Amino acid sequence: MDKPTVEELNAFFCREFTQVKVSVEALGEGTARVRHSIGIHELRPGGTVSGPVMMTTADVALYAAILGSIGIVPLAVTTNLNINFLRKPAAGRDIIGECTLLKVGKTLAIGDVFIYSEGSSDPVAHATGTYAIPRR
Amino acid sequence: MDKPTVEELNAFFCREFTQVKVSVEALGEGTARVRHSIGIHELRPGGTVSGPVMMTTADVALYAAILGSIGIVPLAVTTNLNINFLRKPAAGRDIIGECTLLKVGKTLAIGDVFIYSEGSSDPVAHATGTYAIPRR
Amino acid sequence: MDKPTVEELNAFFCREFTQVKVSVEALGEGTARVRHSIGIHELRPGGTVSGPVMMTTADVALYAAILGSIGIVPLAVTTNLNINFLRKPAAGRDIIGECTLLKVGKTLAIGDVFIYSEGSSDPVAHATGTYAIPRR
Amino acid sequence: MDKPTVEELNAFFCREFTQVKVSVEALGEGTARVRHSIGIHELRPGGTVSGPVMMTTADVALYAAILGSIGIVPLAVTTNLNINFLRKPAAGRDIIGECTLLKVGKTLAIGDVFIYSEGSSDPVAHATGTYAIPRR
Repeated sequence: MDKPTVEELNAFFCREFTQVKVSVEALGEGTARVRHSIGIHELRPGGTVSGPVMMTTADVALYAAILGSIGIVPLAVTTNLNINFLRKPAAGRDIIGECTLLKVGKTLAIGDVFIYSEGSSDPVAHATGTYAIPRR
Repeated sequence: MDKPTVEELNAFFCREFTQVKVSVEALGEGTARVRHSIGIHELRPGGTVSGPVMMTTADVALYAAILGSIGIVPLAVTTNLNINFLRKPAAGRDIIGECTLLKVGKTLAIGDVFIYSEGSSDPVAHATGTYAIPRR
Repeated sequence: MDKPTVEELNAFFCREFTQVKVSVEALGEGTARVRHSIGIHELRPGGTVSGPVMMTTADVALYAAILGSIGIVPLAVTTNLNINFLRKPAAGRDIIGECTLLKVGKTLAIGDVFIYSEGSSDPVAHATGTYAIPRR
Repeated sequence: MDKPTVEELNAFFCREFTQVKVSVEALGEGTARVRHSIGIHELRPGGTVSGPVMMTTADVALYAAILGSIGIVPLAVTTNLNINFLRKPAAGRDIIGECTLLKVGKTLAIGDVFIYSEGSSDPVAHATGTYAIPRR
């Protein structure tokens, strides 16, 4: 299957996850960078970004890296996600997820994701996740 | 600190997570049951519930069980969440999370969460998570 | 494939893991109970049981429950293990692992494991794990 | 507390984990490299290295990186370990663990560990773990 461009993957995500505010910014060899835009709905009192926003970012970053590697396979599904929250995200900054795939096998793909507040080099969270790839 | 009632905890969650559609239904000894209402915004094409909805449910169920045990401590934060996705959730059914705490220590509380489509006894996901409790 | 008896599974484990001191004690519907005998080699200074002993117990309990359900499939391999350490194990007590499978699919089996010091009802650790089952 | 040298940390591990065949090879700024020597006792039929050997390597690599950063604090304990198994290790090769700390807080330290068969650049496993640091 052909590898998608960033534009093709964003078009797919818009149809697939209509409500999610995550867009793909870059795709590389087994890597992806995504951005979760942060508005009033993603903030918790005190101005911090909610945990589920970071989990969503991790999940989409992983999905983007996998589809960027194997082509747009809509039936790939997350089977496991593990996330460690490291630091309080900055208020009002977009959340950036940078995924590197650790393995792309025939049935499983595994990657890790560093999550940042835009403009900071200290990660706010780190996730690893597994996707099951349907038999082709 | 006093243990909150279900009503008090829901009032706290309404202030704390204005955008989250999760409500507490029951609190027991180290347990909590929560409900994530499912509307058009939580569905993916094909009618299934998105992964982040289940992660949010797990996180809130854990937080509810902890606050139900130790009192409303707003600064408790998730440090780790691990989730396994088991089955495709039913379309259009609310998602129910049932948390049982495994440990409530001085600085860490750990619990597991079974996640169901309402009306089914087979879990759609299973999570374990850790919250750090601030020094009192 | 036929489901093995406890004796058949122990015979398989003796051949497969010659160096591991874990034996199967019981098999049920999607469940297994295993015992890790504890001697001087499994203790840390202060008399507590080492973390790797508990991880080994979790891994074998999961493997036992899976093979007890699907038959002895030697090529099943762990793909993910997540463990939370809850309490200090008692010194000199065997470690008991009790696994319940959450899902047995065609390619993945997932279960959780409660780990105890023998004679105590408070778990010392809790694990969840995934095994990949080879295509048959 | 003073940061230990590689020799001091190995001397501590020899006392603390008398039965573990892991030695520290290098310590850096928030990093550690450890080696698990592989003999007949660590192999499974077919010549592959057992899962618990890789979990032990991950746990010790993390502990080494933490003690290398904060000094030898014997009461630090693992609270969570998550490991993904990626590839079959080479038979008869030592297992190398390379840990990078993601956060060293006052009460928790979190790191990730890439695990290799010596001489290969593709990781055989990847782990993340959390240690609780006792109040000083």
